[in-house]
Amino acid sequence: MPYIIAIDCMGGDHGPSVTVPAALAFLRRHPAARVILVGQAGLLEPLLADAAADLAARCAVRHASQVVAMDEAPALALRNKKDSSMRVAIDLVKAGEAQACVSAGNTGALMAISRFVLKMLPGIDRPAICTVLPTMTGHVHMLDLGANVDCEPEHLRQFGIMGAMLAAAVDHAERPRVGLLNIGEEDIKGNEVVKEAAELLKASGLNFVGNVEGDGIYKGDADVVVCDGFVGNVALKTSEGLAQMLATFLKQEFGRSPWTRLAGLVALPVLKRFKARVDHRAYNGASLLGLRGISVKSHGSADAYAFEQAIGRAYEAASNGLLERIAAKLAELQTQQRVEKESV
Amino acid sequence: MPYIIAIDCMGGDHGPSVTVPAALAFLRRHPAARVILVGQAGLLEPLLADAAADLAARCAVRHASQVVAMDEAPALALRNKKDSSMRVAIDLVKAGEAQACVSAGNTGALMAISRFVLKMLPGIDRPAICTVLPTMTGHVHMLDLGANVDCEPEHLRQFGIMGAMLAAAVDHAERPRVGLLNIGEEDIKGNEVVKEAAELLKASGLNFVGNVEGDGIYKGDADVVVCDGFVGNVALKTSEGLAQMLATFLKQEFGRSPWTRLAGLVALPVLKRFKARVDHRAYNGASLLGLRGISVKSHGSADAYAFEQAIGRAYEAASNGLLERIAAKLAELQTQQRVEKESV
Repeated sequence: MPYIIAIDCMGGDHGPSVTVPAALAFLRRHPAARVILVGQAGLLEPLLADAAADLAARCAVRHASQVVAMDEAPALALRNKKDSSMRVAIDLVKAGEAQACVSAGNTGALMAISRFVLKMLPGIDRPAICTVLPTMTGHVHMLDLGANVDCEPEHLRQFGIMGAMLAAAVDHAERPRVGLLNIGEEDIKGNEVVKEAAELLKASGLNFVGNVEGDGIYKGDADVVVCDGFVGNVALKTSEGLAQMLATFLKQEFGRSPWTRLAGLVALPVLKRFKARVDHRAYNGASLLGLRGISVKSHGSADAYAFEQAIGRAYEAASNGLLERIAAKLAELQTQQRVEKESV
Repeated sequence: MPYIIAIDCMGGDHGPSVTVPAALAFLRRHPAARVILVGQAGLLEPLLADAAADLAARCAVRHASQVVAMDEAPALALRNKKDSSMRVAIDLVKAGEAQACVSAGNTGALMAISRFVLKMLPGIDRPAICTVLPTMTGHVHMLDLGANVDCEPEHLRQFGIMGAMLAAAVDHAERPRVGLLNIGEEDIKGNEVVKEAAELLKASGLNFVGNVEGDGIYKGDADVVVCDGFVGNVALKTSEGLAQMLATFLKQEFGRSPWTRLAGLVALPVLKRFKARVDHRAYNGASLLGLRGISVKSHGSADAYAFEQAIGRAYEAASNGLLERIAAKLAELQTQQRVEKESV
């Protein structure tokens, strides 16, 4: 069975002019995949006119009359936009016509509608947003990044399970290392929630490697880093801000005079390779985990290359059985807890 | 009156071989300043033998027989190390023989001993650690960075006051912009503590500019960024980890082949200027705020240049009347609250 990805083509800052070319580029790289392009058919179909026949054959267009605005209140989008491209894409996953959906639209609306339509996995209390970041040694999956601002230890345990199963599925890692984001000040190692979460993760049967400090995220100290959504969002945005500042400063220094511009020209191939290595576009696509379906959020400002990566992330999760893995792990842990309770 | 800085010369990874040359370099740049070098006299005095006479004349040596270990439990250091270089340096501030102290030793011990010896300022519940970070437009003071892992809104208000007075003192800024670190997800803007803190800061009489997201720290959205110690520590360490990773990748790319090494040689002056601009050593020296005395913490691994900056930070705070400013602001706010209460 080919895996089919439903794409909200109207979402994001650029809409179909980015999402449709990205979908075609994705199909070119994944010869077994299919997509359903969701949005205003009159806008989408002309963009397919010039597509190679083998790609166009793997694209279906599903008309949706509405669009969720980037600044629309999630509750209103949920209630009033039942024929939006975002809603229809998620409905396709629910109906089993697609195995995953992708949107560059409004994060809050995507979360609210995904949760409402797809429902939570049994044993998971709250959905979490998980992204991939580059590290010194490869990459890391980090969650939550903003869906939950006040977490209890049990939620962090669940994030650990979901993150580990995502890493296992898409990285083909048998026992991914799960770390808990914490601080390492001498006297006061973390707050109460984090301390209790560490105990739960130790007992979880996951490959829990203990605390990871902020710098450990990028050192590659773990394959999965778990934290509450407030801390995770701050860490992610802080990283984005720092990277942007450093890039600006580097550019300014090379632009300072004819002589430095010449040096920049000589160094250009090296700088380009450096840039490619840390290109945030390559890491685009955050997974909304904990749902009975795969829903991936792209940056609103994604270009075609970045949006293609987000589609790829949805495809990897679907084709590697992410949901089945999470469900199986949760069932295993529940059985284990039951056995432990009975033996007490 | 010359300002006198007490220096714990035994703290940090390198001890006197770094701290004494740093002190001499500091004196060279600050012709009106004096220092008291605290530590084992037999180790310190030989390092002064070759110093220029005008510098040596502004150095006093105060013998201290003990050293607080980098991994020593703060409570034990407080109880058992009453003649440690760290304790004696802080005692000198308490006694009024010095106007500030600096240490590269154990953070937890420095915090515990500073708090015990110097006591809290009236109106401040908890001390906070405040550091300076570079931004696109200058620099920012950020606090707390790990002294407090569970903060109430009132604590964040107090951090705002202390940070603003620090910025006013050392940057000569009349109304520094105070921001509250928060997340910007569409539906859920921050947790309850942060929401309440925003209300308190709005009513504080400070120049409160509202929420700052992680990337806003480096964009220069505020002169002072307030957060709890857990979040602040994660943001700081995450930044350190990312900067280190990017530096490593840049080095690797320039070291890849004879051709890229040549390009690196051509670009070297530019890369050096870039590096100088974001050199974390230039930002060394975190202020422990909220105490009735000035205590500055240097990175344990600081070299002489970095440690000199930390001494400079202590000197700036002392010579610009940091404590007087915080006390005056607190008094002003208390009077204001009293007037408001009476008028109700």
